[in-house]
Amino acid sequence: MTEIIIRKAKEKDLLSVVRLLADDQLGSVREDASEPIAGFYLDAFKRMDEQKGNDLFVVERHNNVIGCMQLTLIAGVSRKGMTRCQIEGVRISADHRSSGLGQKMMDFALQYAKDNHCGLVQLTTDKSREDAHRFYENLGYKASHIGMKLDLLKL
Amino acid sequence: MTEIIIRKAKEKDLLSVVRLLADDQLGSVREDASEPIAGFYLDAFKRMDEQKGNDLFVVERHNNVIGCMQLTLIAGVSRKGMTRCQIEGVRISADHRSSGLGQKMMDFALQYAKDNHCGLVQLTTDKSREDAHRFYENLGYKASHIGMKLDLLKL
Repeated sequence: MTEIIIRKAKEKDLLSVVRLLADDQLGSVREDASEPIAGFYLDAFKRMDEQKGNDLFVVERHNNVIGCMQLTLIAGVSRKGMTRCQIEGVRISADHRSSGLGQKMMDFALQYAKDNHCGLVQLTTDKSREDAHRFYENLGYKASHIGMKLDLLKL
Repeated sequence: MTEIIIRKAKEKDLLSVVRLLADDQLGSVREDASEPIAGFYLDAFKRMDEQKGNDLFVVERHNNVIGCMQLTLIAGVSRKGMTRCQIEGVRISADHRSSGLGQKMMDFALQYAKDNHCGLVQLTTDKSREDAHRFYENLGYKASHIGMKLDLLKL
């Protein structure tokens, strides 16, 4: 793996990010990767921009976006006023999987959490993603919680 | 149950909230409910205040705080730019449990999520909280995910 850059996403990266999100067993039915990019993705990116500590990151290599993840700093009162760093939507392009890139992204997230004085890094993964569970457990994550979701679009 | 008010917390509510967080099988070793309130709770509350969409709510009855929860609106690109509402730190005072108050708090959270155009409400609960799992499942939540945490204070 040659040099990669992990940086905050810009609006021009969004279509690449949506393609990454769509190229996934669960994401393929949830996203719309058509061109030009759908307005609801641009709107969502603006909403993220208005929230301090809620950022989309991309992995760039040779000017191509080959990975993405969302990192959200969540201040809170519990655990003696501990801030959490939450990881969401980690994706790596198909031709860069199993290359150690996931490890580099998690190293970045961990350092980002430390730099922002977090006491905990947390994420949820779909029960069906067994490879992901092993990956995170190997990095020291504990599967201590059950992640519950209520889909408002199905109510 | 007579009338209750669910509202955003003010700084003067913080000590009551910390007492609720501490009066819990897991929270008792994680919090510091001594008076005057520890400065790190005040600092955390200020950090929450600086984050748009990240709010602490309290349940008030007869001018007493009898419950609390944190609701965080998290904008994101995935799922066609869907915003999530995340519930954290739900606590009810010991003498008001099993009174239907939890249901009222979840109704409030659901309406808050709808009012803020969320597509999903999500939370994680510790695997040991079996009563909580049944409670949320009865409300329609699906235990679809595994919640993983990396404790930076133990690294």
